[in-house]
Formats: sequence, structure tokens, C-alpha cells
Amino acid sequence: MENQDKKKELIIDAALKRFAHFGLSKTTMTEIANDLSLSKALLYYYFPDKISLYSAVLGNIISLMDSELKKGTARAANSHEALGLFLNKRQEFISKYYNLLDFTKITGSDLPEELGSMFKKAKQSEVAILTSILNKGMESGELDTCDPQETAMLLMEALGGIVFNVLKVHTRPFFPEKEQFDMILKRQQKLGIIFLKGLKKLN
Amino acid sequence: MENQDKKKELIIDAALKRFAHFGLSKTTMTEIANDLSLSKALLYYYFPDKISLYSAVLGNIISLMDSELKKGTARAANSHEALGLFLNKRQEFISKYYNLLDFTKITGSDLPEELGSMFKKAKQSEVAILTSILNKGMESGELDTCDPQETAMLLMEALGGIVFNVLKVHTRPFFPEKEQFDMILKRQQKLGIIFLKGLKKLN
Repeated sequence: MENQDKKKELIIDAALKRFAHFGLSKTTMTEIANDLSLSKALLYYYFPDKISLYSAVLGNIISLMDSELKKGTARAANSHEALGLFLNKRQEFISKYYNLLDFTKITGSDLPEELGSMFKKAKQSEVAILTSILNKGMESGELDTCDPQETAMLLMEALGGIVFNVLKVHTRPFFPEKEQFDMILKRQQKLGIIFLKGLKKLN
Repeated sequence: MENQDKKKELIIDAALKRFAHFGLSKTTMTEIANDLSLSKALLYYYFPDKISLYSAVLGNIISLMDSELKKGTARAANSHEALGLFLNKRQEFISKYYNLLDFTKITGSDLPEELGSMFKKAKQSEVAILTSILNKGMESGELDTCDPQETAMLLMEALGGIVFNVLKVHTRPFFPEKEQFDMILKRQQKLGIIFLKGLKKLN
């Protein structure tokens, strides 16, 4: 069992390198098997298709990002600093793994269900982190009392609006070009500052 | 010339009634010609195809909405009231002319250029109204100085994020169901209140 898990980890690592460098579309299962001197049959035993392997790789990165976001924001001195960290760190991850996120170029509007539910989980964990940022700000008396989870959702949606606006929503692929990220981050930071100021306790 | 304009107005009025009741897809040019006892040749003389007629109808509604929004927000006592009015009035129009906005169901992701540029203009005029709301708030000392146009854009994008989130962006048609509008409006109002409070002058 442990041996199986190790093998799986090795495969995911090798796949991550390929996907991150060449993207999903330009990576074949054969190449990944060759990288590890593995038979294709054995590779397919662990991952029945490219999407399931890709999904495992993405899952790893998302939980890595989640734990880094949690650590970073927990150390922040106040809610403004925490939100700034959150936005920066998230963007860093997206930039670093940009090639890995090219699935939209292949799947178009039909996201495989496996990936869809993974992104849903990722979003939920981001809302949870924003919620904890707001909670901490309320506890310290920095922010006014509000429904922290609902407010975190609202902030997520507002931040998402910036992304959608920079993208042309009526065109595919539905994913920002690398150059657009800086603009998105700057505008999200501005919005974050206004939003948190809008929640501030007025003495 | 004047006679021509009158005829055009009559056609647009008749088309508006049909489109608003049956939607774009279920309305034919023949029906509109019949409503006015007009020959189809004459109708096509004024509007070479259904999209151009539809676009004229939409243009009329957009300028009506624009002037009502301008009047309403100009009368408001402060920026909060003005933004509330803006959001409500906009929603009212969308609800009233909901059937008219079903073009996404037909055109899918390929919006005809004519309509695309019309929506761009509509959006610009909405940003202009939000800018004037912020400007007035700054003049009265209610809001802190900021770049009003840039801040208005940011608010527009944030408000748009709420719509995108309620919709499932990966599905078509890319337009909210009637029932979703209430939820959108309520969340936009909450966001608007936080946003304006975030711009408030702190004494």
C-alpha cells in the first residue's frame, strides 16, 4: 500500500514537470511513462487516463497553495495585510503553474466533471481563508460585525468580477493571458483595500 | 426625411412589442411587416435584416434607461441613495425587457458586432453615471478624493462579478434566469454599501 502511494507520488511529480513545462495538450502518457522508465500498462493502472492524472497533479498544487495561503494569512498583523498576502500568493501560484492551467484551451466550455469539482473545492477553500481573515479582523475589533462567510463570498465574487472584466468573456479560451495577471492583481488589491475599509469599525 | 424617421420609429415600436413579448428567435420580419400593413420590401429598405432592427430596438431601450438613470441619480440626496437607485432602476429595466434580451440564446458566444458595440456603449454610459455619483459624493465631502472614473470602473467590475457568480459561466445561454435577478440585486446592493463606505471620508 505504502509502496503504491510512493509510486503514485513519483508519477504525479513526473507529470507535474511535463504539464508545467509543455501544458496538458502537448504532453502524452507515453512521455510520462518513459520519464520514469515505467510500462504504459503500469502507468494506466494508476491513472486510467490523462485527465485523471492531470486532475491528481492539479489537486496536489491546490492543496499546496491552500496550506501556504493559510500559513501566510495566519501570520499577518491585520486584515489588510492578510488580504494583500492572500492576493499576492494566489497570483504567484497561478503565474508559476500557468502552463498547467491551459486545460481551457483544450476542453473549451466543457470542463470534465473531475476538474469542475476540483475547482469548486479550491474556491470553497479560498472562501474559507477569506472568512478566517474577516473573523480575525472582527475579533480584534478592527472590522465591524457582519456575517463573515457571506461577506467573504461577496468579496470573492467582487474579486472575480475583475478577472472576468479583463478577459473577454465572449471569447475562448476562458483564461487570462500571462500579461493580464499584473493588471488583475493591481485592481484586485485596490478593490480589497476599499472593501476592507468599508467593513471597518467606525469609532 | 422627417417622414422617413417617423416610419422608422413606427417600425421600431412595432418590433419592440413583438420582441418584448415573443423574444428575438420567435419573431419574424413578416410578422412585423404585417403588424404595420407594410410591404416586406419596404421593411427591408429600412432595416436590411432582423439583427439590424433588433439592434435599433435595443438602442432605443438603452438610451431610455440611460436618461432615466441620469435623472434618478441626479435627484438623489447622497451617493448611497444614488447608487441604490442606479441598481434598482437598472434591474427594473432588465426585468421589464427580459424577453428582449434573449439574444444570447440564439447567438451563443458569437455576438454580432453590431450588438457587441451597442453593449460596450451601454456599459460606458453606466460607468459615466457611476463616475458622476462618485464625483458628487466627493464634492459634498461625503467621499474621499479618488480617481472617480477608475473607481467607478472598479465598482462596475465588482458588481459584474456578482452576476457572473450567480450564472454558471461555463454554460450557455450566458444570461441570468429571471429568478436569479432578485438574488443578484440584493448582493449588488450589499456590495455597493460596503464599497461606498470604503470610500467615505474619515473625520
